[in-house]
Amino acid sequence: RGAKHILVIPGDGIGPEVTTWGKAVLEQIGKDFGHEFTFDEALMGHVAIEATGNPLPDETLAKAKASDAILFGAVGHAKYDNDPSAKVRPEQGLLKIRKELGLYANLRPIMLFDELLEASSLKPEILKGTDILFFRELTGDVYFGEKKRSEDRNTASDLMIYSRYEVERIAIKAYEAARVRGKKLCSVDKANVLETSRLWREVVQEIAKNYPDVETEHMFIDNAAMQLVKNPKKFDVVLTANLFGDILTDEASQIAGSMGMLASASIGDGTGFFEPIHGSAHDIAGQDKANPLASMLSVALMLEIGFGLKEEAKKVTDAIDKALKDGYRTGDIADSKTDKSKILGTKAMGQKVLEYLS
Amino acid sequence: RGAKHILVIPGDGIGPEVTTWGKAVLEQIGKDFGHEFTFDEALMGHVAIEATGNPLPDETLAKAKASDAILFGAVGHAKYDNDPSAKVRPEQGLLKIRKELGLYANLRPIMLFDELLEASSLKPEILKGTDILFFRELTGDVYFGEKKRSEDRNTASDLMIYSRYEVERIAIKAYEAARVRGKKLCSVDKANVLETSRLWREVVQEIAKNYPDVETEHMFIDNAAMQLVKNPKKFDVVLTANLFGDILTDEASQIAGSMGMLASASIGDGTGFFEPIHGSAHDIAGQDKANPLASMLSVALMLEIGFGLKEEAKKVTDAIDKALKDGYRTGDIADSKTDKSKILGTKAMGQKVLEYLS
Ligand SMILES: CC(C)[C@H](C(=O)O)[C@@H](O)C(=O)O
Ligand SMILES: CC(C)[C@H](C(=O)O)[C@@H](O)C(=O)O
Repeated sequence: RGAKHILVIPGDGIGPEVTTWGKAVLEQIGKDFGHEFTFDEALMGHVAIEATGNPLPDETLAKAKASDAILFGAVGHAKYDNDPSAKVRPEQGLLKIRKELGLYANLRPIMLFDELLEASSLKPEILKGTDILFFRELTGDVYFGEKKRSEDRNTASDLMIYSRYEVERIAIKAYEAARVRGKKLCSVDKANVLETSRLWREVVQEIAKNYPDVETEHMFIDNAAMQLVKNPKKFDVVLTANLFGDILTDEASQIAGSMGMLASASIGDGTGFFEPIHGSAHDIAGQDKANPLASMLSVALMLEIGFGLKEEAKKVTDAIDKALKDGYRTGDIADSKTDKSKILGTKAMGQKVLEYLS
Repeated sequence: RGAKHILVIPGDGIGPEVTTWGKAVLEQIGKDFGHEFTFDEALMGHVAIEATGNPLPDETLAKAKASDAILFGAVGHAKYDNDPSAKVRPEQGLLKIRKELGLYANLRPIMLFDELLEASSLKPEILKGTDILFFRELTGDVYFGEKKRSEDRNTASDLMIYSRYEVERIAIKAYEAARVRGKKLCSVDKANVLETSRLWREVVQEIAKNYPDVETEHMFIDNAAMQLVKNPKKFDVVLTANLFGDILTDEASQIAGSMGMLASASIGDGTGFFEPIHGSAHDIAGQDKANPLASMLSVALMLEIGFGLKEEAKKVTDAIDKALKDGYRTGDIADSKTDKSKILGTKAMGQKVLEYLS
């Protein structure tokens, strides 16, 4: 087995604090299992704009393309959010790297840690047993279609657009996953209104024919947003477009009650990109408050999906599970029943998981 | 006070069963308060396609324009949903009447009936105190922008488009409502990605200046879908575009745990359009199972928003409240604690509310 080269892109806000612990997990696993992991670091987002004027500097992109996997933190800064006329934005870095690396499939497993059932706003009996794997398309849709503003600035548009091959390639990935999971796939669209959704549904119906062992359901996005709250257990693999996926996966992560615990993998035909679901959370940045577990779980996804190292991945999730079972919590996942002495900061929680790991 | 002419459009599935009871409420209120309400009926949706080939026959549109208010049921049929190539669809009738009547603002109050707190999948303590009024834009966005399919049928697009005046007019309505409610307005967009959202945010920021007494917040749609589950109480007035509103309002209705209890008002500069939030529910149509309360609550919205008859509207919601307090439920809102003898069908529940009304 050759060395694996990992690019760490900490990004903005709490990004650097949490990726530190993701990287530490990789180092530990490398040592324990005798894998050679090498590391480099690069800028993206607000920090990259500050340093170079560009949210995705050429150097970062070149390093990304040359790496075997990317461990990413978060990008974003409130300063741009409330300035609709800002031309350069941290998020552009993220969108561009997705496109440039061809990361067309974003996988988001919504796993429940039994210990955290109580942290959700949903009733435990509604939640228990939920295990969803989202496939969100990531390089098409209204995210990348042409954007226009009229000369008088009074009219704005974004083109929502999909081509057959874009739907096909992610649908195939989703069906392959469904086949080895619960054998159910729910494709979410708005085919009663949108032409892109009608193409989406046509293509999914075609691909479905090759997977007779998988039960296919088509659901409208408004209904899906509802069903996810009503009965999350009923979903297995959910396949959807970029914009709908953005909305549904965030909703689902809250349902799981543990935003700080969820990770995602963006894959395509080359280098994979692994990141927590949470954002840059500037309000708690630098205060040793951020939950490092999602970054550590991103590493578990990197090991499993990126490098095919299942045993190593399981080692990581087991260590996290143990820390939770023993009652350790960061502030975001603590509740009234948590032993106060077991509420840890970023560093102490990171350290704790490393201990369980070795 | 002159006579009010009401057009009833029952539509598909359970539409006819439930609008019957909405109309009965209007008749009763008319009698009790000495208002002259006159009625007519017209076709829309699947039933209209079957009868005339057109989901919105000219005759229906003409009657709609000539009426003072419209009481609508639902449209839709599974037969079209799974045929992405169908050219004529029931929903086209609904979209066309919205556009033709200039119904640019869809108001959806998410009210909780204390008796139904337990029906939600959310924990009662998360839910209690929730009182949200959505303003969903209804005649613009990707719903009405140009739709295209390439000649080889392999590429499809929908244009997401907004003009300044479209945002202004609904923003003003939403701020006016916020001013006399909780004085908080949350505008939901995706301004970190979409040009239409950046225009949306610019315009809302401008309008906000005229309402210094209202606290304005801007939130990204993915975050909003999450916050709505996490802490629905924090919202007062929510203002958003057509597509985002479609998704968020359905999610919110499930949070309230009572899809069968929620109604919406679509208004513009002319005739108002009042309907339950639930759909055509063909699976239970004609079985005396549908919940008639949302149609009756649509009538309460018609009385209050359409005709300015607040006292009459309150009479209707009070009657429904009393029926619930006395333990009566339709199947969809019954739970394990419901006295089985008080689970009623459509007709018995409709009759019960009429009794409490007089
Ligand atoms: C930051 C933003 C552009 C991004 C998206 O909308 O894709 C984020 O919300 C995500 O889900 O990764
Ligand atoms: C039936 C459909 C076209 C409609 C919409 O998307 O607007 C419905 O979901 C609604 O919310 O009224």
